[in-house]
Amino acid sequence: MSLTFSRGLEDVIIKETSLTYIDGVNGILRYRGYNIEDLVNYSSFEEVIYLMLYGNLPNKSQLEEVREKLYRNFDVPKELISMIYSLPKGSNAVGILESAFGMLASIYDPKWDKSTDRDLAISIISKAATITANIYRAKEGLKPKIVEPKKNFAESFLNTVFEKSFSNDEVKAMDAALILYVDHEVPASTTAGLVASSTLSDMYSCVVAALAALKGPLHGRAAEDAFNQFVEINSEDKVESWFEEKIIKGKNRLMGFGHRVYKTYDPRAKIFKYYSEKLSKNNSQANIYYKIASKLEEIGIKNFSDKKIYPNTDFYSGILFYSLGFPIYMFTALFALSRVLGWVAHFIEYVEEQHRLIRPRAIYVGPEKRDFRPLNER
Amino acid sequence: MSLTFSRGLEDVIIKETSLTYIDGVNGILRYRGYNIEDLVNYSSFEEVIYLMLYGNLPNKSQLEEVREKLYRNFDVPKELISMIYSLPKGSNAVGILESAFGMLASIYDPKWDKSTDRDLAISIISKAATITANIYRAKEGLKPKIVEPKKNFAESFLNTVFEKSFSNDEVKAMDAALILYVDHEVPASTTAGLVASSTLSDMYSCVVAALAALKGPLHGRAAEDAFNQFVEINSEDKVESWFEEKIIKGKNRLMGFGHRVYKTYDPRAKIFKYYSEKLSKNNSQANIYYKIASKLEEIGIKNFSDKKIYPNTDFYSGILFYSLGFPIYMFTALFALSRVLGWVAHFIEYVEEQHRLIRPRAIYVGPEKRDFRPLNER
Repeated sequence: MSLTFSRGLEDVIIKETSLTYIDGVNGILRYRGYNIEDLVNYSSFEEVIYLMLYGNLPNKSQLEEVREKLYRNFDVPKELISMIYSLPKGSNAVGILESAFGMLASIYDPKWDKSTDRDLAISIISKAATITANIYRAKEGLKPKIVEPKKNFAESFLNTVFEKSFSNDEVKAMDAALILYVDHEVPASTTAGLVASSTLSDMYSCVVAALAALKGPLHGRAAEDAFNQFVEINSEDKVESWFEEKIIKGKNRLMGFGHRVYKTYDPRAKIFKYYSEKLSKNNSQANIYYKIASKLEEIGIKNFSDKKIYPNTDFYSGILFYSLGFPIYMFTALFALSRVLGWVAHFIEYVEEQHRLIRPRAIYVGPEKRDFRPLNER
Repeated sequence: MSLTFSRGLEDVIIKETSLTYIDGVNGILRYRGYNIEDLVNYSSFEEVIYLMLYGNLPNKSQLEEVREKLYRNFDVPKELISMIYSLPKGSNAVGILESAFGMLASIYDPKWDKSTDRDLAISIISKAATITANIYRAKEGLKPKIVEPKKNFAESFLNTVFEKSFSNDEVKAMDAALILYVDHEVPASTTAGLVASSTLSDMYSCVVAALAALKGPLHGRAAEDAFNQFVEINSEDKVESWFEEKIIKGKNRLMGFGHRVYKTYDPRAKIFKYYSEKLSKNNSQANIYYKIASKLEEIGIKNFSDKKIYPNTDFYSGILFYSLGFPIYMFTALFALSRVLGWVAHFIEYVEEQHRLIRPRAIYVGPEKRDFRPLNER
């Protein structure tokens, strides 16, 4: 047996996939063969749900069917709503998602079954919307509210969170964000969920494992950390001095920059930039953050381009979310609401097509055999 | 870049470890250099906690310190107790653990910090005891009860679960079970938690990820499935015909047999067998199951020994737990109560000594670039 040691599993392939193709050198991202730009510009999150779970873009009746399945699954158990509203207001949003999906795992505990897995996956996306909306509502002291179907998924979600109406541009921006974060091959969250799926743990628990990994600052929390930089910088004319002090002299990491896979501009970052510029025009504070971010991007690229470090997807996404009215503490939960589709699509692909228990090895570097000495001789 | 594809990560090393040494050919298992047999026979779960977290067996004052830390951390937030008791009685025990640890992640959200991580790890073990005890109590319609310190951890836990006293043999058997399940290198649960820890997600969330993977029938649930075979067989004289029908003709998997790493008798299985024989002598139904298991082991070894398949740790552990009064639905949660120590020890080792974001790759095998066609042309 020849063993491979690759720290961080950098050079290790964990599965095959037909879901997502990344060309990190040329900045190309495709879901099932479709360029991310086309999907954002011409389709909707619901169409992407169908695409990821069934392999092709839906026709009209297939799309109606997905919508219908999404819309009838927004309800969640009352115990779950009680749990969310019982927590202290300062509780971490992704932790609440973990707990909520743990409750669903515990109550429903579904077995893997090819004939029902895709329906279960769709219902998980619906429930994620209701849970995410109520995390915001609970933390803001509002009343519980189950998501109600509107024109599309993005609008249904936004209306439930804020109980107000949104412009077409705003709804489209939310829809774009949902599409952009859907999948990115096998980052840590997807990998953690795949490991759970490999034991044939139920699909909710696999989502729980993925959420637990997403929560970390080196993964999903990056958009919050990137945005907090803009808040700290506070005005456009302080970007240069901040960069000099914090990044160059202070040797801090520039958050929202750089990616293990992309060695060029992240194609998602371009689209997030477009929408955050557009939305922030109607929100003066968001507009300040947008200008800070643009300037910071310029300086960052100038300083790092020889290392091929560019803005990643988390650099501008926060400005889009903030422009829609979301507080910073919601950014990672919003990432999760989109990514849950990519997760369940990967889990289904792994369990149904290429299942094998994931069980790596560790190299033992500890002490040789030691003789036991009883407590009173130590 | 040379990429390695190893299905199930079988030949991939994910980390170095000084915690656990397994010799799968000779059936040897050591924690930090000490044979598992010595630790079970001469030490206690509390001593093993110190050993795993600090590297050496404790002297008397160090042991007292660990006990004191364990004993002052049994309390959990009231919202967490409410959540457990709000769930339907049939809810899955490991799912409840996931949800409970998600709540702790959400409420406390601790950062990684070398100076406090070991204290946090110990408090996680204490809280796991209170949560696990209350899962049983809630499902059985009993009242909430925080674990109260008794002579040792095993006794404190048993007393809280059942509110009765136990013999020294029973307490020692529980202690042995806690030691035996502590760690086993990097199975799926530990791996899922390591992936979460690699994003610097908080320690509770890493436990959540591990629990989500443990829940699967190919991992933690195996002891429940093994025991359910004994229940199904029902009497010793039916073992042979059951084996012939279900395993030979029916080609079902014999649960509790075989292991990816051991190619001989699992050293933990031997010790579990010893204690389950001992305890089941005072419990007539458990004794029937013990006799069924022994007979099934004999037939299984005879049939599979050329394939080097032997009883694993989950084959007899259920009989020990059942003899103590635990229902089958608690077996995986009891596994978790012990293993949580191994998990947090691995997470600390990974984050403090060899941290790197875990981000494998997938091979793309899906469609080439496809041209987008709008909805009304599909």
